[in-house]
Formats: sequence, structure tokens, C-alpha cells
Amino acid sequence: MGSITTVSHEARLLCRQNRLTNTAGVAPGYLQANLLILPGEYASDFHNLCLRNPVACPLLGMSSTPGNPRTVKPAGCIDSADFDVCTDFPKYRVYKGGKYQESRTEIASLWTETHVAFLIGCSYSFEDALTAAGLPPRHQRTKSVVAMYRSNIPILPAGIFTGAHCIVSMRPYRLDQIDRVREVTRPYLSTHGEPVAWGWDGAKQLGIADITKPDFGEPQIFENDEVPVFWACGVTPQIAVEAAGENIEGLVFAHEPGHMLVTDWTAADLENLQSSSI
Amino acid sequence: MGSITTVSHEARLLCRQNRLTNTAGVAPGYLQANLLILPGEYASDFHNLCLRNPVACPLLGMSSTPGNPRTVKPAGCIDSADFDVCTDFPKYRVYKGGKYQESRTEIASLWTETHVAFLIGCSYSFEDALTAAGLPPRHQRTKSVVAMYRSNIPILPAGIFTGAHCIVSMRPYRLDQIDRVREVTRPYLSTHGEPVAWGWDGAKQLGIADITKPDFGEPQIFENDEVPVFWACGVTPQIAVEAAGENIEGLVFAHEPGHMLVTDWTAADLENLQSSSI
Repeated sequence: MGSITTVSHEARLLCRQNRLTNTAGVAPGYLQANLLILPGEYASDFHNLCLRNPVACPLLGMSSTPGNPRTVKPAGCIDSADFDVCTDFPKYRVYKGGKYQESRTEIASLWTETHVAFLIGCSYSFEDALTAAGLPPRHQRTKSVVAMYRSNIPILPAGIFTGAHCIVSMRPYRLDQIDRVREVTRPYLSTHGEPVAWGWDGAKQLGIADITKPDFGEPQIFENDEVPVFWACGVTPQIAVEAAGENIEGLVFAHEPGHMLVTDWTAADLENLQSSSI
Repeated sequence: MGSITTVSHEARLLCRQNRLTNTAGVAPGYLQANLLILPGEYASDFHNLCLRNPVACPLLGMSSTPGNPRTVKPAGCIDSADFDVCTDFPKYRVYKGGKYQESRTEIASLWTETHVAFLIGCSYSFEDALTAAGLPPRHQRTKSVVAMYRSNIPILPAGIFTGAHCIVSMRPYRLDQIDRVREVTRPYLSTHGEPVAWGWDGAKQLGIADITKPDFGEPQIFENDEVPVFWACGVTPQIAVEAAGENIEGLVFAHEPGHMLVTDWTAADLENLQSSSI
């Protein structure tokens, strides 16, 4: 095991040991990542899905060789020699034939040499910037998991991945704060960027009937005149896997919503990330 | 004027002289481009719009310096020393305050030193590949302009560009041809790639009520058991300009739908285009 050198490495170790669950607010300044792992024969279609839907599925990195869960490209994503994509998320979900099977704290015993891992940008990454701008996300203050909803925004098809819709995360803000919220999150193109919709009209346009009943995470409290503000969410790949259903043979793994990987990238890497092609 | 060296250069000259209108099938093998030109203060928002919506607005190139209509980056897009974005499309549309004003054969007299031009991928680019695969687009055989429709696919917001929806182009094919049609167009990520929807159910999902009444271009004939197949369309930026309305001061220019720029890029450049960051 390498020596612990960074706050991000330390956070990954805590996740590996299952001493952390919800990673919101963990290792401030470091980018966090969603996960999708699938058999290699579907990797090309999934890669195209990311390129065609970069707001919901911004590609941050992938396992460098099929079958190797211990290194990730591009360089810089995980600097530590002490890494395993099968253990370093706090919790995993297992899918078979497009159906959720179970949640687990590791997937090392299920990983095969055909598997390819994809790291997808996460909106937790811009929450420090929101806090620094005097706009701290409600769920961080209440120590809850961000609320996530199924929306009617279509995910544009790529190969076997057809018929999915975008998952959105929601943070309450006042109407007079929205311009600033949009500005602060706009540069984070690789971690969902600016909101996709806002306000009660926005919720209606997205087809969200009841804001008190999120599909993932926990309901959030609205104070004063706050309205919902929605960002695309990296849980979306799991919905694409559900939609692909029996077209996928073999096991698919993903992170448990809200339980992310802490990477070694920081906001300073955002511009390079956008121009890197994986 | 430089000497005419390529089929693509020759086609541009014919367009400049207004001896060509609909460019479908012109200069086979060369990629064609949609156009949006807007005052420089909106260039960053529009650039983000392209990055966030790459299926509808795949960014191929842009004018290399604000105010210079005669060169385009990245290199290779237009090799000729004999080029002007203000004359080399067969026809232009002029917008003011989000409203269409008029169509013209050139915009040289309206261009100002603040203007920035964006070239957007066009689905005409993969039509040669469809023809080579024995799947020639109907509108090429009937010498008509491809049918284009307003759809309900939301264009994800970027700065002043909010509330727009995707325009789609449509080509009729039989259900048993669709897998092959998807395969052939899939690699063309920079020119809209594979279809976004297909079949009569697909038309319904996109909110297209009457296939005989396209919003742009001309209605297409359905033979035997053919169904509509829809691709995202580079007319979409014009809808984003309409939606931005009075938020844009100054004149905006675009191509007339179906009247494209013939670039010097070929299908062989597709992979480089996808990994280039402009």
C-alpha cells in the first residue's frame, strides 16, 4: 500500500474501509465521480452514449485496459498507486439483464477480465464553488443525500442504449439567486455544468409531479420562497442500463447514488478534462 | 483568387456564384456545414451550447479571429486561400432580436468586425455513406430538400440560450433497414451521428403531429412500408437564436436550411474532428 499523500487519497481509503458513505462535502476541491462498469463488448456503445450526452454522462476517465481495475486513464485522475475501482467507492449496485439485483460494499469477487470501468463527472464537484459563493447546497447543511428524480429529457440513443431518460439532481434556491447559481456552475462542463431547468415551471417541464418524492436520495426542505434547481445527474447511465434490459449479457456494476469516488483531479483540471479525448 | 484544386473548392465557387442552391449530393465524400454567425459577446455562451448539445450542434470549426470572415480554425477545414464565410454558402438568413428578417445570397455588406462565425456539422455528410451501403436518401433521388421538423427534444441551456428544442431531419426507410442505417451513420459523431428516433412511434415521441408538413425543407414520399427516421439537425442553432429573442443585440446570420457550406474535410477526418477541441 502506498503512503497517504493527499486528502483525496485519504478519502478513498475511508471509502474502501466503509467508514464513509454519502461523499457530499468530502475532500473539498477534489472532483468526484460516478461509476459504470460493463462487459467490454458494450464499451464502444457506452462510450458513444457519453459523447452524445455529455451533460448527463460527462466522461472523466476509464479503466486503462479491459480487465484491470487498478489503473485509470487519462493520467492524473488517480495519482495513487493504491487504487482499486472494485473497492474504493463506498457502495456499489449490481445489475443483471437491466434489473437491479443488490447493493454491496465491494465488487472485487464479481469483476471479470472482460469488464471495463467508466468514471462519469458528478455534481458534488461544484458544490464547494457554490458554498464559496455563499450558496451552500441544502443537503450538505442537513447532512442528507441530494434529491434525484427521473426526468423526461431523452438520452439520445447510442447502439444498444436506447429509450433512456435523464436523471436530475435538485438543490433549492431563491429565484433571485439563480443567475449566480448558473454562473458559478457553468464552467464545470465535465461535471454536469449549469442547470438544465429551474423553478416550479421547470419541474413541470421535466415531468416531475411530486417534489417531495425523489426517485433516489432524500427529499429536501424548501425555505422561504425557494424553488427547485435541477442539474443533470450521473445516475443516468444506470437508467440507460435498465432501458437496455436483456440486451446486456453478464453483470453490470455502478455506484450507489450519492456514494461517489473521490478523484485526485481538482477544479484546476477542468479545462484540460474538457479538451482531453478518452 | 487561388487556383481551383479540389472538388470541394469548385463546389464553394459555384455556391458563391449562386449557381448551386440545395447542396445535397454535391462534392461526394466532403463534409458539409451549417452556419451560425453572431456578435462576439455571445460567442462564449454559444460555444457552451455546442459543447452541451453535440448531437444537434456538433462544432466543426469557427472563424479564427473575431471580425475575420476569410479564415477558419481548426486547420484543414478550408484549405483554400480563396474563401469567405460571407459569400460561400448558397443562401443566408438574417435574424434580428430573435426574429427572421430576410434571406440573401451574401452577407458581406452586413458583417461587422465583432462577428464570430461557427460551422456546425451537417447530416448531408453521411449521405454518401448511406448511398454506398445501398440506402440512398429519398430526397437525393427526388432532387428535393430534406424534410425538417421542430421536435420536443430540449436543447440544454447555456447562458442566454435557454428554452430551445431540437430540429430533426427525416429520411424514410423500411423497418428492416434501420439497424443498418444506424450502423452506417453511427461513426459520424461530428455530423449528427446515428438517428435520435425512428418509426411512427418515434415521430409521436418527438411530438411531430403531421409528417406531410415539415417546418423546413420539403415533404418526402413514403414508399411501401417505409417509416420516418430522424436525425438531429444543424438548423437547431437558429431555433436557439429565436428562443434567445431580444437578449441578442445586433444582427445574427445563418445558412438557409439545405443550403450548406462544402468544406475540405472528408469522412477520413472524422476521428480527428471528434478529438479536436476548438
